[in-house]
Amino acid sequence: HPDDTVVDVGGHKIGGGYFAVMSGPCSVESKEQITYVAQRVQAAGASILRGGAFKPRTSPYSFQGLRAEGLELLQEARKVTGQPIVTELMNNEHIPLFVDAKVDMIQIGARNMQNFELLKAVGKLNVPVLLKRGLSSTLEELVMSAEYIMAEGNPNVVLCERGIRTFETSMLDISAVPMLKKMTHLPVVIDPSHAAGIAFMVPALAQAAVAVGADGLMIETHNDPAKAKSDGAQSLTPDQFDALMNTIKPELEFFGKTLN
Amino acid sequence: HPDDTVVDVGGHKIGGGYFAVMSGPCSVESKEQITYVAQRVQAAGASILRGGAFKPRTSPYSFQGLRAEGLELLQEARKVTGQPIVTELMNNEHIPLFVDAKVDMIQIGARNMQNFELLKAVGKLNVPVLLKRGLSSTLEELVMSAEYIMAEGNPNVVLCERGIRTFETSMLDISAVPMLKKMTHLPVVIDPSHAAGIAFMVPALAQAAVAVGADGLMIETHNDPAKAKSDGAQSLTPDQFDALMNTIKPELEFFGKTLN
Amino acid sequence: HPDDTVVDVGGHKIGGGYFAVMSGPCSVESKEQITYVAQRVQAAGASILRGGAFKPRTSPYSFQGLRAEGLELLQEARKVTGQPIVTELMNNEHIPLFVDAKVDMIQIGARNMQNFELLKAVGKLNVPVLLKRGLSSTLEELVMSAEYIMAEGNPNVVLCERGIRTFETSMLDISAVPMLKKMTHLPVVIDPSHAAGIAFMVPALAQAAVAVGADGLMIETHNDPAKAKSDGAQSLTPDQFDALMNTIKPELEFFGKTLN
Amino acid sequence: HPDDTVVDVGGHKIGGGYFAVMSGPCSVESKEQITYVAQRVQAAGASILRGGAFKPRTSPYSFQGLRAEGLELLQEARKVTGQPIVTELMNNEHIPLFVDAKVDMIQIGARNMQNFELLKAVGKLNVPVLLKRGLSSTLEELVMSAEYIMAEGNPNVVLCERGIRTFETSMLDISAVPMLKKMTHLPVVIDPSHAAGIAFMVPALAQAAVAVGADGLMIETHNDPAKAKSDGAQSLTPDQFDALMNTIKPELEFFGKTLN
Repeated sequence: HPDDTVVDVGGHKIGGGYFAVMSGPCSVESKEQITYVAQRVQAAGASILRGGAFKPRTSPYSFQGLRAEGLELLQEARKVTGQPIVTELMNNEHIPLFVDAKVDMIQIGARNMQNFELLKAVGKLNVPVLLKRGLSSTLEELVMSAEYIMAEGNPNVVLCERGIRTFETSMLDISAVPMLKKMTHLPVVIDPSHAAGIAFMVPALAQAAVAVGADGLMIETHNDPAKAKSDGAQSLTPDQFDALMNTIKPELEFFGKTLN
Repeated sequence: HPDDTVVDVGGHKIGGGYFAVMSGPCSVESKEQITYVAQRVQAAGASILRGGAFKPRTSPYSFQGLRAEGLELLQEARKVTGQPIVTELMNNEHIPLFVDAKVDMIQIGARNMQNFELLKAVGKLNVPVLLKRGLSSTLEELVMSAEYIMAEGNPNVVLCERGIRTFETSMLDISAVPMLKKMTHLPVVIDPSHAAGIAFMVPALAQAAVAVGADGLMIETHNDPAKAKSDGAQSLTPDQFDALMNTIKPELEFFGKTLN
Repeated sequence: HPDDTVVDVGGHKIGGGYFAVMSGPCSVESKEQITYVAQRVQAAGASILRGGAFKPRTSPYSFQGLRAEGLELLQEARKVTGQPIVTELMNNEHIPLFVDAKVDMIQIGARNMQNFELLKAVGKLNVPVLLKRGLSSTLEELVMSAEYIMAEGNPNVVLCERGIRTFETSMLDISAVPMLKKMTHLPVVIDPSHAAGIAFMVPALAQAAVAVGADGLMIETHNDPAKAKSDGAQSLTPDQFDALMNTIKPELEFFGKTLN
Repeated sequence: HPDDTVVDVGGHKIGGGYFAVMSGPCSVESKEQITYVAQRVQAAGASILRGGAFKPRTSPYSFQGLRAEGLELLQEARKVTGQPIVTELMNNEHIPLFVDAKVDMIQIGARNMQNFELLKAVGKLNVPVLLKRGLSSTLEELVMSAEYIMAEGNPNVVLCERGIRTFETSMLDISAVPMLKKMTHLPVVIDPSHAAGIAFMVPALAQAAVAVGADGLMIETHNDPAKAKSDGAQSLTPDQFDALMNTIKPELEFFGKTLN
């Protein structure tokens, strides 16, 4: 495959010199919350709204997401801002819901990177896929999981490095970007929020992601991180996200990337 | 929960002093193969037949298992030997097939340990579940995944340590057994085949598993490992499995465990 | 090298069917302490006394060991019990002290496994060496470090697996034993205390070590773990060590090993 | 400590807005080699010459460095270019040689990060120290090792992240920079050569290092990587190093750092 793949998500391009920022809360919590955050991250320069409706949680007793209602709230936020939405699909049986909601980009989470039946199912859809790397998956395995999707006919796959599990709790594999660029033609985005696990570090990692050649960022922003139902510690406030975008924009220009 | 949970799989008990050995090929490949291996591992002392029908493979271009046909062949082998069968379920949509086949124990593979929708679905069944630890899952996460199953009403969960991913290619976390025994009342079995990744090491690890207090073993045995469609390097021949069982039997007696 | 190497430490053999247990406190703290623990572990069946005089500590502000005085106290304990002593050497410049003290076995700690100048120096001595594996050293690297010692003329090297660093805090690499036995003729001992990091798990891991084919054990025993100046959480009391030896002795007999 | 520490190495500053690039071959191999590479990396913008005289090698049968002769050749290169030199010290006994050679910065290698007697010894010298992180050392441990040096009176410590050991062979812990900056006032440099282990990836990682806020870079450059006596696969050619510096210089300017 000689050229870089460019994936279009609701009119915003990822790859081939185009850079997109996806931001929003870990979990969709209410109409007010998701709409407010959507407006704030859009104003700051994000083009795609992220937000979890179906949440994979370690414990069955933790908040599991608003599920179908969460998808509805994402659609309402989309009506307000016009931003495309990316949200996680956890199971084949939920696909009709995602199709009905016209989700613009389907996220396959780290825990499902090798849920091969799910990969095959999204490979049959005509929707871009954000494929997150598993916590201890090799890059070879990540590329093979993308192959499961593409082999079914869906070429619109964006790879996402989100940190690996080691003896330290913060670990972004920044070398994944040059290595994946050598192995494949697919766009690669970085999720510094999950890699860091703690908010103060997110802006510096985002700047490193731009410099290393990533094609996009996925960043958790929450209206009130201290009260977030999930991932509060690693979420930025809207003001912090503003500040981050203000450092990223000139850096993207410096590196010749087009934010869109 | 004051007492150890004892899980009954087709009349064979796991836990509370009872020890069971599950053995068979990584993949079911043909009627002759699975029936032959079933007879050999039964003769050697295994009580439960393992064999993969639906195979999770890193590459979409690798052998994916005989799938529905594999389930049929496992049933035919069961008719011959009377052994209960354990086989991996990869997707909610395959559950009716597994129920029709009267699979005696459903295996949730390492890659699906945090496929929470799948865990909830098997939690609603009346079939024992073998839950394998993910390659970089903590023991806390493993226990939480078991909780997903039990919270839906299925108490018959057996935990399986199958090796973790590190800088070395062979890594059995033997300390998982005493730690899981402290954390939970559930039976714990060891899969030395996947932990080792290479056959010569399997017998020594199996002996360690007995000594550390495991409640069972899952071991890959293949009629002709060099020609196996998957996991050949770590599979024992039937003769090697015989030899292993001949060392395990007196060791179990020494440690006061009942092989059944 | 066709036969297993048997290393003799003050009349006690390690390897080739001979099994030795080294025990004692992490740090030598006082004459009363080391003498009392020496007598207790000897009575329980340990043949070699361990105790740290020079202590490698993460922080410069932590207790650094009694150093030269610690070596003297170990010699006094040896006078009382007749047990040979094993203690850690951290630096080439301390070698004369160790030679003067007639230390029976020199321990090279995990942090110094690739301190090559130190390895070469102990390779020139006529004293057995206990070489501990580094926290993230491969087995190939461990064997190469032993080669540094042997290449200088000292063939009496015993390898020690003491746990590796991963995302879990307890991690004994039990597969190191069969793998090292395949790679080399040297004796291999297990240190379950450091691998576990917590005392309750030590007895089960010790039993696994015997079953997997190790040639010895190194176990931390302290007169009063709660007040230990280092490694208290993973130290056994003398009574717990008694109990452990009472389970190990018949197990060694079962596996045909000679405790000496 | 309210302000960033600025370490001066032969007139070149590291920290507090000053950025220095150290480059040169893994091993000093000959007078022609080290002098040629010194001139090339200086011309490209490096201010400090690196080169190993005493080489820590996994195998005793690998090239061990030119040792004392290597120190002499570094001094001769220094005469030619005027660049200060940084080279690795492996053992307390070699300190007089390093002092005689007026080594401008002493490197403590990853394998010796917790060789505490060595740390204490360089803490007593009046020479800046480059302290490399161990392959599986936590950042807390790295800072504690720096504390060993500083507690002896030497405040001129520069921390170096050089990659950690995981299931992947390339792994730069880029998050070490913001975390260390939060934990300490010391300068932090990145060694992308060892982190990558392969040359093609070094320029992208160097750019990420600048963006994340590092205070310097250490990069292996060799006149003929294919024939290097060590680390050839990860070494840049002088032309590749030129190209790298040409991307780094404007990036440093963009980020407001002063290359010196």
